[in-house]
Amino acid sequence: MTKTPLYDRVTLIGLGLIGSSLGHAMRRAGVAGEIIGADRDEAVCKKAVELGFVDRAETDAAKAVADADLVVLCTPVGTFDALAKEIAGALKPGATLSDVGSVKLSALKAMAAHAPEGVHLIPAHPVAGTENSGPEAGFAELFEGRWTILTPPDGADAAATEKLKSFWEALGSKVEVMEAEHHDLVLAITSHIPHLIAYNIVGTAADLETVTESEVIKYSAGGFRDFTRIAASNPDMWRDIFLANKDAVLEMLGRFSEDLSSLQRAIRWEDGDALHKLFTRTREIRRQVIEAGQDE
Amino acid sequence: MTKTPLYDRVTLIGLGLIGSSLGHAMRRAGVAGEIIGADRDEAVCKKAVELGFVDRAETDAAKAVADADLVVLCTPVGTFDALAKEIAGALKPGATLSDVGSVKLSALKAMAAHAPEGVHLIPAHPVAGTENSGPEAGFAELFEGRWTILTPPDGADAAATEKLKSFWEALGSKVEVMEAEHHDLVLAITSHIPHLIAYNIVGTAADLETVTESEVIKYSAGGFRDFTRIAASNPDMWRDIFLANKDAVLEMLGRFSEDLSSLQRAIRWEDGDALHKLFTRTREIRRQVIEAGQDE
Repeated sequence: MTKTPLYDRVTLIGLGLIGSSLGHAMRRAGVAGEIIGADRDEAVCKKAVELGFVDRAETDAAKAVADADLVVLCTPVGTFDALAKEIAGALKPGATLSDVGSVKLSALKAMAAHAPEGVHLIPAHPVAGTENSGPEAGFAELFEGRWTILTPPDGADAAATEKLKSFWEALGSKVEVMEAEHHDLVLAITSHIPHLIAYNIVGTAADLETVTESEVIKYSAGGFRDFTRIAASNPDMWRDIFLANKDAVLEMLGRFSEDLSSLQRAIRWEDGDALHKLFTRTREIRRQVIEAGQDE
Repeated sequence: MTKTPLYDRVTLIGLGLIGSSLGHAMRRAGVAGEIIGADRDEAVCKKAVELGFVDRAETDAAKAVADADLVVLCTPVGTFDALAKEIAGALKPGATLSDVGSVKLSALKAMAAHAPEGVHLIPAHPVAGTENSGPEAGFAELFEGRWTILTPPDGADAAATEKLKSFWEALGSKVEVMEAEHHDLVLAITSHIPHLIAYNIVGTAADLETVTESEVIKYSAGGFRDFTRIAASNPDMWRDIFLANKDAVLEMLGRFSEDLSSLQRAIRWEDGDALHKLFTRTREIRRQVIEAGQDE
């Protein structure tokens, strides 16, 4: 590596899709002098070393964070409280403690409850992912062209925030800074509700008496299959997201259901114009998503 | 062409995504001696001839069906009644009248009301598509590995049904025969409800006050963008589908909403186990979709 790494030692806690992608992306960008992994599952630790996206891996998270300049929690958000408590005493003064969780207010609170003075707490969320899980699911390009949202708390160290911003940019990501609470609202509608309704419709389809499961699968190319892909995402992670972002999810779900009732009514009363108007507006949003380079 | 074509002359009415794909696929498979196109839009007719998936094209549907052995309606289902009436007198005795509509009971009724004696009425629905529309959106491989459902009415000619089955198989499709009513229930859950909720969430997201449209687009990679793709489908076609399959759609929507309320309650009461149980079951359905070769 000819470049000077941004951080001499980075520890990734949790070596699933995002942890392994981070490892690969860091290797490629040369932003870390050394990459230490931590995962409670020993088989995952072995696999991570074998795949080469960490230099070594530990099942003991506290041991893994020793002397790290950047520690990134890549486990489901429901683990953050216990995990932050476990590693707090082992964090190096001046280190940055971050994460990749999909809910930021609860992540911030959980980490802030334990992070010692002198450790820079800067939560982050790369808005990127696939439906695959585990250390073999990761790839270096996952963050390319995607947005990473940093939600530093009031009074966060500006230099530490700037450095973490450079880190994510080096991995190919675009970076935005916003308040944790606003992040959670934005993600509720752009990610959490889409997952919730995908999980829901796949469940509904599996439970019908009039249509068999095998028919649902055979004829899934009519739209359903796209929902099954989303509904194949990691169950632990998504359970934690819905619990951690309960308020924003329930708020957005209320809006979704209200609109759906109105659509239902338009169908019942055969109001073709109302349907056509909505279907034309949504097409325009798709065009903008493509223009913004956020399509696949 | 060295093979004997299955039909000497095939007329495609409506030259959008499905019509143009049918033309390309028929050319490739050599199943039609001659392909005639019909579209009310003269520019579409010209484009179709230019792209080469029809031998000639007419804006007058009645003129286009003259002497055709197979006529396939590829327009939105809401047009079938008027269209069948328009072409009825011009259909050749012994010809097969079919379609590619996503709703079969209403399609069957609309065509049956006008089809003269001696014309074989065999509705069909290839469960395949993309979010793109128009004569340039078609491609020969669209039907490969996908299912086409035939819904011949009671007393339909067995030989004509068998021939249409061979036709679709020659285009790479797998073929199933079922009752129109059952088809409409199956498609309500595998295609119509997925589209409805995709349209709905994209509409909801665009209407929020707390989250801007530009934020929704920027952070769409978290799941939302997949819904925008589905919600970019042809507005005319989808308006007609929801109106034509009203009863089955409302029934399935009732089930979906009931399940969604239960999921909402699980989040409100923080029942993580209930969430996890559903999220694990849905993953299994995804596995089966992949095994069945119906993923992308």
